[in-house]
Amino acid sequence: MKSSWTVRKAGAALRAGRISAVELVDEHLSRIDQNGSRLNVFMTVTGEQARAAARQAGDELRAGRDRGPLHGIPVVHKDLFCTAGVRTTFGSKVFADYVPDFDAAVVERLREAGAVMLGKSHLHEFAFGITSNNPHYGPARNPWDPDRIPGGSSGGSGIALATGMTMLATGTDTGGSVRAPASYCGIVGLKPTFGLVSKYGVFPLGFSLDHVGPMTRTVEDAALMLEAMTGHDARDSASVNRPRERYPLEGASLSGLKFVLPQNYYFDKVDPEVGALVLGAAQKAEAEGAVFVSGRLPDGEQLSVVAQTTLLSEAAAVHEPYMRKRRADYSAGMLELLDTGRTLPATHYLQAQRLRRRILGVHLELLKKADFILTPATPIAAPPIGAETVDVSGETHDVRILTTRNLRGINALGLPALVIPCGWTQAGLPVGLQLIGRPFGEAALLRAGAALEAAIGFELRELPG
Amino acid sequence: MKSSWTVRKAGAALRAGRISAVELVDEHLSRIDQNGSRLNVFMTVTGEQARAAARQAGDELRAGRDRGPLHGIPVVHKDLFCTAGVRTTFGSKVFADYVPDFDAAVVERLREAGAVMLGKSHLHEFAFGITSNNPHYGPARNPWDPDRIPGGSSGGSGIALATGMTMLATGTDTGGSVRAPASYCGIVGLKPTFGLVSKYGVFPLGFSLDHVGPMTRTVEDAALMLEAMTGHDARDSASVNRPRERYPLEGASLSGLKFVLPQNYYFDKVDPEVGALVLGAAQKAEAEGAVFVSGRLPDGEQLSVVAQTTLLSEAAAVHEPYMRKRRADYSAGMLELLDTGRTLPATHYLQAQRLRRRILGVHLELLKKADFILTPATPIAAPPIGAETVDVSGETHDVRILTTRNLRGINALGLPALVIPCGWTQAGLPVGLQLIGRPFGEAALLRAGAALEAAIGFELRELPG
Repeated sequence: MKSSWTVRKAGAALRAGRISAVELVDEHLSRIDQNGSRLNVFMTVTGEQARAAARQAGDELRAGRDRGPLHGIPVVHKDLFCTAGVRTTFGSKVFADYVPDFDAAVVERLREAGAVMLGKSHLHEFAFGITSNNPHYGPARNPWDPDRIPGGSSGGSGIALATGMTMLATGTDTGGSVRAPASYCGIVGLKPTFGLVSKYGVFPLGFSLDHVGPMTRTVEDAALMLEAMTGHDARDSASVNRPRERYPLEGASLSGLKFVLPQNYYFDKVDPEVGALVLGAAQKAEAEGAVFVSGRLPDGEQLSVVAQTTLLSEAAAVHEPYMRKRRADYSAGMLELLDTGRTLPATHYLQAQRLRRRILGVHLELLKKADFILTPATPIAAPPIGAETVDVSGETHDVRILTTRNLRGINALGLPALVIPCGWTQAGLPVGLQLIGRPFGEAALLRAGAALEAAIGFELRELPG
Repeated sequence: MKSSWTVRKAGAALRAGRISAVELVDEHLSRIDQNGSRLNVFMTVTGEQARAAARQAGDELRAGRDRGPLHGIPVVHKDLFCTAGVRTTFGSKVFADYVPDFDAAVVERLREAGAVMLGKSHLHEFAFGITSNNPHYGPARNPWDPDRIPGGSSGGSGIALATGMTMLATGTDTGGSVRAPASYCGIVGLKPTFGLVSKYGVFPLGFSLDHVGPMTRTVEDAALMLEAMTGHDARDSASVNRPRERYPLEGASLSGLKFVLPQNYYFDKVDPEVGALVLGAAQKAEAEGAVFVSGRLPDGEQLSVVAQTTLLSEAAAVHEPYMRKRRADYSAGMLELLDTGRTLPATHYLQAQRLRRRILGVHLELLKKADFILTPATPIAAPPIGAETVDVSGETHDVRILTTRNLRGINALGLPALVIPCGWTQAGLPVGLQLIGRPFGEAALLRAGAALEAAIGFELRELPG
């Protein structure tokens, strides 16, 4: 049976004694038992540790030590986050046996907030790809059609949420790795503003593009999870020093909010069925008082190239020392990307950075006229595992490029972007829409997302099969 | 006869009517007439405009409109700064006939502060070198020995000050271009903290290394000039938004100030005569109460490579579009540097940036233990024009590398660095010492510099020949 827990509901049940923290964990672990292997969701399940942590969480609550909304709530960490004493593979063969002796900042913060870790979720090799078809650990599978990809690189986190194996999951997003699985699995994923959440203890990919973000089933859960994840961290040089915010959603409404729906670029290679679902969501928003203003983003293709040049260069720099020693332990596909990165001249990288600043300016101007930019998250629903191309309106596209087309540019801009599900295709696959906000505008973005989520009324279904 | 004007003295004389602004300008123009061509100091002299501006400055003063300390004071701009209606070559053949229709930010600010522009000073081609031996415009000549270089790239500015052709001059410093001519000509040069002075309207070289700074004959003049140059400028993306400061020097003293004199790296390839002059200055400081603490900078060589990799890459990116169209108008020497830059892989650039952050950390730690780092500005006094190598203690060194050895790393760190003259060699050449301060610590740096300048008691001589 599908899970209907939210953080608020579970928190109330825990505090009223209607369920114990151990029972809550066991309910989730039993769903992992049921479908975890079949869908290849986890690298490691830490069931015994989880039960022990849940027992402690329950004891604390009974003793009146309440850590807040996430107290006793199950969480899953993408296996790109270091966890002290728990194997952390980064989805790679290079680190197949790596057991860190420290926690990533976000792992630490979520534990401090009372969340109970159930395990480490499956991901694309070193997070460098969007299929989660991992040559070393096998393909993760889309819960709504196991022959399709869940998206990536945070694929396991997306599946675990959609299937009720966890309530919260961490993800990282360098070119769409939180948002693509959110779209393909039918869950909520937030890429916060660059620097808002510490990346300490997360294996880097593209250091100027890497973001850590919450993945959940509802916008409210994402807001509560983000509250626990933010805060300056001197161990991450990109971490910003700003006062921590709360993200209350009470009274959130679409009335009067201004959205831009840039038909150029963001809609021009979109599967008609997906486009209709996104536009349908926009109509529901309009019916509730949202205002749609015209606006074009003339630099979409260019921004995408900027992001790709930046990512290839930075990933090659990050992996250079490991490639020298462990080349045989990289997949052929990843080596191809890294070797491409190694051939890029510094001047290309630098020109990309200059363009990047210019295009950010264009977006910021647009975000003065409107509160948010609304786009399809992915131009398609989840494609089949192993498919390298996909047809849209008679044109053939590369799966990787199309999946990240609307996502990866936003990493180069550092803007916050929220993906929420907006409907199901005829074939029974969910798709998401993307809301892009202003720098450090998470509070407004989450409120708009919550109101839009309510207007859309999307619901997860029972698992097929 | 050598000039003994300082900003304060001239300002008092102007305000007391002992000299008119036009007379002050004429006195400087006559020195330009006398030696300007012989030493190849200027790209353009704007005598008529200067007299007109001086007349206006005088009228304003008499009418009670006092623009402050720089009112009526002669200034020379390095020909890398755009000047509306006045040819601006950037030391290049590519822009030999370029007449901008706008002023660089600093040109505008100094004019607003009442300074009177006398002309545009000679520089190394596109500021990419330290000899000021310009293949298109001939070699600039050291005033103390015309067969030697004045240093560069802001060579003309250095000569003009040493010879009394101006009282103030602008310079830019990407790898020592303010500080090397200060050392070789016997004047004061400040590279402020990165971002403190706007670079708008200055032709870029290495955009993360480029600094604009004041060149003067005394530390006090540098302080007064800097006050007029700072302030946020949205047109320069590197410009920091901080409240403008004043830099009062009253009561400046060396007593209790802590200096590090890192013998490793910064002294290990120094000509003994130069080293003795710098250490002699340190002893004078100690006699006045300065404290010398031990401290090593283990990363000197590495930092120098980091700065060089960064500069070559960024310069290649900057010049790429011009090189495509005007390759024949670049000198062979410059093309060699730019072509080297174009072959550098992005990964080298990125690894350099990571090292750069780490080495900055080492310096900041040292600057917690001490107020300043004291080094020789240049390991040698001015070498002969055309010399590619120079011998120091029996070892042969590349002139360019040795001249910038103690300077260019500081550009990569963005720290403020002040060069003041510390003595004359037996051959009659001046040399400078360098004081490195904390980020945005210009106020303290200038006070220490003023006290040290007084302790040293350096004086410019009559011009030989």
